[in-house]
Amino acid sequence: MKNLVLLGSTGSIGEQTLDVLERLDNWNLKAISCYKSIDKIRKQAIKFRPDYIAIYDETDLKELKKDFPIGYDPEILIGASGFAELAGLNNVDMVINAIVGAAGLEPSYNAIISNNKLGLANKESLVIGGNLIIPLAREKNVDIIPIDSEHNAIFQLLDGKDRDQVSQLILTASGGPFYGYTAEEIEDVTVEDALAHPNWDMGSKISIDSATLMNKGLEVIEAYWLFEYSYDKIDVVIHPQSIIHSMIELIDGSILAELGTADMRTPIQYALKYPDRGSNIAGKLNLNEISRLEFDSPDLETFPALTMAYESGKSGKGYPIVLNAANEIAVKAFLDKRIGFTDISKVISKMLDKHNSGEFNTLDEILNLNRTVRNMTEEVILTC
Amino acid sequence: MKNLVLLGSTGSIGEQTLDVLERLDNWNLKAISCYKSIDKIRKQAIKFRPDYIAIYDETDLKELKKDFPIGYDPEILIGASGFAELAGLNNVDMVINAIVGAAGLEPSYNAIISNNKLGLANKESLVIGGNLIIPLAREKNVDIIPIDSEHNAIFQLLDGKDRDQVSQLILTASGGPFYGYTAEEIEDVTVEDALAHPNWDMGSKISIDSATLMNKGLEVIEAYWLFEYSYDKIDVVIHPQSIIHSMIELIDGSILAELGTADMRTPIQYALKYPDRGSNIAGKLNLNEISRLEFDSPDLETFPALTMAYESGKSGKGYPIVLNAANEIAVKAFLDKRIGFTDISKVISKMLDKHNSGEFNTLDEILNLNRTVRNMTEEVILTC
Repeated sequence: MKNLVLLGSTGSIGEQTLDVLERLDNWNLKAISCYKSIDKIRKQAIKFRPDYIAIYDETDLKELKKDFPIGYDPEILIGASGFAELAGLNNVDMVINAIVGAAGLEPSYNAIISNNKLGLANKESLVIGGNLIIPLAREKNVDIIPIDSEHNAIFQLLDGKDRDQVSQLILTASGGPFYGYTAEEIEDVTVEDALAHPNWDMGSKISIDSATLMNKGLEVIEAYWLFEYSYDKIDVVIHPQSIIHSMIELIDGSILAELGTADMRTPIQYALKYPDRGSNIAGKLNLNEISRLEFDSPDLETFPALTMAYESGKSGKGYPIVLNAANEIAVKAFLDKRIGFTDISKVISKMLDKHNSGEFNTLDEILNLNRTVRNMTEEVILTC
Repeated sequence: MKNLVLLGSTGSIGEQTLDVLERLDNWNLKAISCYKSIDKIRKQAIKFRPDYIAIYDETDLKELKKDFPIGYDPEILIGASGFAELAGLNNVDMVINAIVGAAGLEPSYNAIISNNKLGLANKESLVIGGNLIIPLAREKNVDIIPIDSEHNAIFQLLDGKDRDQVSQLILTASGGPFYGYTAEEIEDVTVEDALAHPNWDMGSKISIDSATLMNKGLEVIEAYWLFEYSYDKIDVVIHPQSIIHSMIELIDGSILAELGTADMRTPIQYALKYPDRGSNIAGKLNLNEISRLEFDSPDLETFPALTMAYESGKSGKGYPIVLNAANEIAVKAFLDKRIGFTDISKVISKMLDKHNSGEFNTLDEILNLNRTVRNMTEEVILTC
């Protein structure tokens, strides 16, 4: 049996990972973690009986253990250090990091430093910590398999290719709920409008990032670190149907694309079974039924977040950390109806302008800057 | 320098091969051949100075040599045996077989038996002779690189893949000029209608095959031999824009596609440089400009040729030979305005019904059956 550590087990990716795990006969769930969904993780624990559980808050401990059957006595860890500790356990065949946000960085770091293969569904690990994580993974010779459908597609397409033959990575973007809106039309959109994503259910943070195109911007930075191509070789194309998950262009002009149904269980299973491939969970993609795939270039005027992400990525150093931290706080303020939709990018822009970059190379340096920017962004929003 | 033998140098693929050759600095054109385009091949000979030329008809000899400069004295071969002889020359790095029709079989056979790597743009070599060519190529360990855009795409997509991970080959078809026509509407179409192919210029034989979908049917049989997947794992999808050249489906439901501009120089260069890749000749594919890719299932009632091809392929033995020979004669009769468009498939159907299959395993057996069916088809058309 292979052992899986699943961080963020109660979120969308976490739950889908458990669904995949039930279909595979050679994986044991060694550890799970969540932030605050105690009821969900208790049920998962009772069903899968992991040896380890980590939750954020000690006060939830009693609630967590209330229905545990006699004889089931997992080791329970508390707080962010608990999540990181699980990622570094021994005898682990894969850590799937499905934590949302910057909190995912330390567990990714710990997985790699402990030689644990990483299934990465936490893009912030690379957005804010790429310069820490990627050289370490290379030094330790630890595989990072991206679970994001875009990066998973590119990972599949690059597999076995000579990197000199690749001229462009092309990330597809659904365009989000406001695709086609003018800069004026987007001024008045509400939280409810933004959460009505056309293609599938996601968490609310990612839904807003999808609506601003910041999600794609973060993915561009993630792709930069994951595949190590320069930013001018990473392109974004709007593809509202989200059937083509992403593409690569080769030096002779051929484009290779990976297509499929929008079901995250496929890339999750891919990460678990790589270099093998599992059976079809998501159902057959019938192109005749889909009938049409559309493409467009992103509207950078209406969606300035994408340009800010490219610029932050190219500037490097602390800028992606500022971008991501300011975005997390601004999105939360929008969801709380404290700021408007277009204020999100204005707040981020303000924070990027304030930043005097230095070097942020260690885990502490990165997390400190992250914390500082979050606090400063809160202040900026209060004075809006 | 590497040496190329180019058979069918004056046709569309032949001319585009020469265009590619001029861009590569390490290929020498050792031999060229054509059927009857003497003026064209003379110009090619004077420009590229191949050591060998083959033409079909001895009476064209004087015309061929009339402007040859002093000191240029190539060896000139005559007739079908001449084409075959060129394919079997020594010190050859690739034979590109761009002959049209069943006449391409013997040169393909000779290339392989002489250990010459084959760039295959003659689908009939495999449609009528797959059971001869493919086991021989395996025995001799000779590579066959398909130049057809569909098969070239699939070849690229399968490259490096474990064949157990592949669940389906999906050939795309433009649908031809009569895509969307009902069975009634197609009754009255003319030669001129059929030659007006929406996407690009091809030879008239292939244009008609494209209009009947027989071209796709022959490609299905070619794919069967080339990639050795069973017919139930080879699918056809109508894709009018012809931007996706073909696809493969993997066992987990992921589909990989190869896209590009409709320019045969890309697959030609691919064959010449494989396993390397050349630079971009055809120009960048801009998906934003294309804006839309469409898909549909083939209308098997209006286009019965596709079903006949599948059935002939599955029946095996002499049936694909009958299918191809009857089609060649029927298409010629349609181009000569001796029969109507829908008569093409009726004639083929009649010939398939007449056939009592035996085994056709040697070059002679295959070519004899081919000749017999051609003659019989002529008779059937005369009595129409």
